[in-house]
Amino acid sequence: MSEFSELDRASAHAIRTLTLDAVQTANSGHPGMPLGMADVTYVLYKHFLRTDPQDASWFNRDRLIVSAGHGSMLPYSLLYLTGAPGMPIEQLKRFRQIDSLTPGHPENHITVGIEVTTGPLGSGTANSVGMAIAEAWLATRFNKDGVTLIDHHTYAIVSDGDLQEGVSHEAASLAGHLGLGKLVWLYDDNAISIDGPTSLSFSEDISTRFRSYGWHTLTVDAHDMSDVEKALREARTITDKPTLISCKSIIGKGLPKQGTSKAHSDAPGWDDVKAAKRSYGADPEAVFHVATEILAHWRAIGAAGTAAHFAWQQHLQLAPAELRAQFEAAVRGDLPANLDAALPFFDPTEKPIATRAASGKVLDTLVPLIPNLLGGSADLTPSNNTLPKDAGSLKRGDFSGRYVRYGVREHAMAGAMNGMALHGGVVPYGGTFFCFSDFMRPAIRLAALSGAHTIFVFTHDSVGLGEDGPTHQPIEQLSSLRAMPGLVTLRPADANETAAAWKIALQESGPVALVLSRQALPILPKNNGVEQGAYAVLDDAAPQLLLIASGSEVGLCMSAAKLLIAQGLRVRVVSMPSWELFDRQDAAARNALLPKDVPALVVEAGVSQGWHKYVGSHADFLTIDGRFGASAPLADVLRTFGFTAENVVTKALALLA
Amino acid sequence: MSEFSELDRASAHAIRTLTLDAVQTANSGHPGMPLGMADVTYVLYKHFLRTDPQDASWFNRDRLIVSAGHGSMLPYSLLYLTGAPGMPIEQLKRFRQIDSLTPGHPENHITVGIEVTTGPLGSGTANSVGMAIAEAWLATRFNKDGVTLIDHHTYAIVSDGDLQEGVSHEAASLAGHLGLGKLVWLYDDNAISIDGPTSLSFSEDISTRFRSYGWHTLTVDAHDMSDVEKALREARTITDKPTLISCKSIIGKGLPKQGTSKAHSDAPGWDDVKAAKRSYGADPEAVFHVATEILAHWRAIGAAGTAAHFAWQQHLQLAPAELRAQFEAAVRGDLPANLDAALPFFDPTEKPIATRAASGKVLDTLVPLIPNLLGGSADLTPSNNTLPKDAGSLKRGDFSGRYVRYGVREHAMAGAMNGMALHGGVVPYGGTFFCFSDFMRPAIRLAALSGAHTIFVFTHDSVGLGEDGPTHQPIEQLSSLRAMPGLVTLRPADANETAAAWKIALQESGPVALVLSRQALPILPKNNGVEQGAYAVLDDAAPQLLLIASGSEVGLCMSAAKLLIAQGLRVRVVSMPSWELFDRQDAAARNALLPKDVPALVVEAGVSQGWHKYVGSHADFLTIDGRFGASAPLADVLRTFGFTAENVVTKALALLA
Repeated sequence: MSEFSELDRASAHAIRTLTLDAVQTANSGHPGMPLGMADVTYVLYKHFLRTDPQDASWFNRDRLIVSAGHGSMLPYSLLYLTGAPGMPIEQLKRFRQIDSLTPGHPENHITVGIEVTTGPLGSGTANSVGMAIAEAWLATRFNKDGVTLIDHHTYAIVSDGDLQEGVSHEAASLAGHLGLGKLVWLYDDNAISIDGPTSLSFSEDISTRFRSYGWHTLTVDAHDMSDVEKALREARTITDKPTLISCKSIIGKGLPKQGTSKAHSDAPGWDDVKAAKRSYGADPEAVFHVATEILAHWRAIGAAGTAAHFAWQQHLQLAPAELRAQFEAAVRGDLPANLDAALPFFDPTEKPIATRAASGKVLDTLVPLIPNLLGGSADLTPSNNTLPKDAGSLKRGDFSGRYVRYGVREHAMAGAMNGMALHGGVVPYGGTFFCFSDFMRPAIRLAALSGAHTIFVFTHDSVGLGEDGPTHQPIEQLSSLRAMPGLVTLRPADANETAAAWKIALQESGPVALVLSRQALPILPKNNGVEQGAYAVLDDAAPQLLLIASGSEVGLCMSAAKLLIAQGLRVRVVSMPSWELFDRQDAAARNALLPKDVPALVVEAGVSQGWHKYVGSHADFLTIDGRFGASAPLADVLRTFGFTAENVVTKALALLA
Repeated sequence: MSEFSELDRASAHAIRTLTLDAVQTANSGHPGMPLGMADVTYVLYKHFLRTDPQDASWFNRDRLIVSAGHGSMLPYSLLYLTGAPGMPIEQLKRFRQIDSLTPGHPENHITVGIEVTTGPLGSGTANSVGMAIAEAWLATRFNKDGVTLIDHHTYAIVSDGDLQEGVSHEAASLAGHLGLGKLVWLYDDNAISIDGPTSLSFSEDISTRFRSYGWHTLTVDAHDMSDVEKALREARTITDKPTLISCKSIIGKGLPKQGTSKAHSDAPGWDDVKAAKRSYGADPEAVFHVATEILAHWRAIGAAGTAAHFAWQQHLQLAPAELRAQFEAAVRGDLPANLDAALPFFDPTEKPIATRAASGKVLDTLVPLIPNLLGGSADLTPSNNTLPKDAGSLKRGDFSGRYVRYGVREHAMAGAMNGMALHGGVVPYGGTFFCFSDFMRPAIRLAALSGAHTIFVFTHDSVGLGEDGPTHQPIEQLSSLRAMPGLVTLRPADANETAAAWKIALQESGPVALVLSRQALPILPKNNGVEQGAYAVLDDAAPQLLLIASGSEVGLCMSAAKLLIAQGLRVRVVSMPSWELFDRQDAAARNALLPKDVPALVVEAGVSQGWHKYVGSHADFLTIDGRFGASAPLADVLRTFGFTAENVVTKALALLA
């Protein structure tokens, strides 16, 4: 164990003074957590965390996730102190200002060195579990032939709020189940929340709770560096369980209002900032100033990380060429060159097949070809068709499989997948029923915001699922996912569109939602426009009528079109699997496919909201508005909501009348 | 303790045979849980649960929530067996058929005697906590002057899946914190989930987990009636903690595939149904048949509940007239006759005030007048302005307050509020940031589906919240709430619209979302159309231009309109706080306010999705599309996204050019 000196304590205080100066300059922000956890974080950096401030992309770095993202001045201070070139002092001075690299909450897509975007409480806990799964999975694959390419820890700083959120329970339970021995949560146990003392609403025995999940638990004085170091060392010795270190901290330590909810957020005023600096033994008048000796000390810590990175690079050279090539391909996220050829083709003369089943067949093909793919489901494996042929499941102590049994934990699944995607070397996909996308919406949003390449597999995509009824039948989910910026939603109409959708999902850099049917759908005669978001499955050069649909309603429109054509009408049937991809097309292409002066009938088994944008004033909607679904066999449900070829014909003729 | 006889066992088997006959006839459904929990439920009904099958609305009945809603044949069988007039045998024969009273998952708005709508796992756990809070809160208010008007238990049947969902952790933690002594969860601990044995993903020590939350825990053999009775009796003796009874059950008990994931769902086939009936000692050939003696026994259990109801009604007569009148008003949900007069009026000459702050002032007025109102917040009380003046908080052992400290548990808060609303006697409201409505979306949906009168208070409603940045700034939330059937979303433009919105929220029978600003907004000169969903704040009989906005963008449009009018233009400014209320108006009124042949500029700090429906082809949108927000001070953020009067003018003139 180390002795900690005045320099060590002053180095921790540097985090505090930078935090206070930034928050007070911005007149906005949350000083409480960084001030409370400065000592813990200092010990972590000095003795444990290996990152390279000069190259934040070092693949084998330890990951530090600040789940309590409101404490964003903690990671920003650490980046500056350790010498990250992307975080000069000027950026700390521009904390929470427009276009700065120091936004209110940490955003990985904005700031180099930030691992994940956090702020909505709980999210970082699930991200950290995903990162630890990614580490263990990649280690199984790449630590062999005498080399150890992947061997890092994942640390997360979590708050009372994080641990109250349901997703933290789900994530912790999953982590305990899988025995993630390199995962350590540093719990900022400061007994204060926004409303006041946590005792207002929170009286769990946290250590007991985590032991019930299979974690190792420790408690330390967050301001006793030796105590912290001892706990972090002990955590290293526990290799078959994650570790929770409860750090008994004083929120806003050093501020006159330390230890109260008033120290959590908002600028304390310069007088209080000065008082805090005095309590640290720092110059009360110096602003954004770190003494030379202290900065040099921090830079040396940063340099040690750079040296560790260099050593790892040397070690990488020892790897056999083939293993190294595989590793580098995994890091880059290479896809097979022959992806198109590899995708299964479904013959239109074959019998109808549910798009979820087609998706399963696509995965049977793709998963062996793309070693980065790591699948899973929130306990709906047989329904989601997400388990590829012969794929094993990850188990405590054996991560050689290709599949994660997430349990009925949709939110943690999504958050863990985001963590894997942002870890790198993994392209995660995971399934649940489409209706339950609601449970993971905060994580889908964070994937969209942070650009995580996560693939969400949503089956049972409409009232067409039948008997399970309204609680399971999506009505508004398509519309509400389409409302989310940065997410590509794809609802393929048949098996071949499903294969094309998977190709797009793999090629996109951000998150993709695949929305798949429970029921069998006929295979369309033609399929060449999924990448454009919409295309004519059945065309007429001078259509009198547009039938526009997605997913299961495209086949319905094809049936109706035949009846309409038999009556002498000129009909174009447009399959529109993705609004987002269609919106990327130029205006000419969009107008050519969907001319606004042609009457249009939109057919989709969900709310009409948003469709008006794609049609002119002469349009009608065979959709489900103002009500939820119904529990009954498929045919009865479809009849109830008017999804029959006859009704499409009737509505179309009424539109043209 | 009782002796249990063959008749008792046969009575439990009646649940099983009805379940099997219904599932097999429908060729769809989930027999596993009802077969596994039949013995437990029988004991519960025989010795503990007091409900009146003849009058499901008896206010002081015990509540039984089937959180594992896929096991819907359990409550349907119980309703039939105890003689509920709304559940004849014909309805069991029509299980999962169109328009039956026996949909796939239990729906309280369809079936008399079902307490809450369940199916999405975990939801019932939070509902049950809300019901138990409602009971304890109302008991504090109405058990006095020598009478005990409220004194019931709340039971919930929960599955492995329920306990994996994050919301169950949140709900259990809250229940333990509040010491809800009349809450009992019956955990169907069958060790099987859809993917297979729960050991695939779930290895928690459940009893330890619940003890960490402050629960009393017990474990029983779910098929040993004496053991079950003993545990239920013990639970009654624990009055300061909720109780978890882990019922070690065999899923699908009696089926040849009992104890495996194949017994969870789907029809087992008539051969297996017959085999199961043989194992129960029942006639394998009889279908939908309950022996006379057994049915009579069940009906006697039902009759005992009716007698208990009668006794309670007698007891109610003993209450002092004033108390009784108050009680009956609470049950009816009476509002003050003078609601309009009671609402505060905000003078347009007063300085701007945030709608969240106006909401706080409205609550200061309303809460003392409406004793049914029970407020709360997910640890954002000072930000949400949800705590009325002088209101105390509910505490373990003291439920005399008017406010629940939910902790950072948005999902459980929403689910608990739904439970309170469906319990009756309580109109719950609860606050969080609008962005975090995502966390509670499954519960908002269930409120909308089941018609729960829950009031969601969402503050910090746009990028206008400023520095906290994209993780906290709603962009797509308005659109995604508007997509949900059955929910009224209101985004008032000023303090007076906020007061009107609260009035509507109280008068609606279903859920309402109030979407409120963080930043101060000017008080509009006029305010007389919130109830119609939209109205002209500034009118012109023959407008050349419509400016349509909601919330904070209405004031902006007013400023822009002045500039446009100064240029000689005829402008109508429409405030549109609620799409749903506007859609209830007739077509003539809608077209008169928003004529489609007048150019329109929609101004809203969120995605444009859905607005196209309300404007003609000559329209433009000053909205936020294709990106998330930005972290910066308010003025900089608004400028970045173009929400300035100058830009509204520019866009308007471009539209007219």
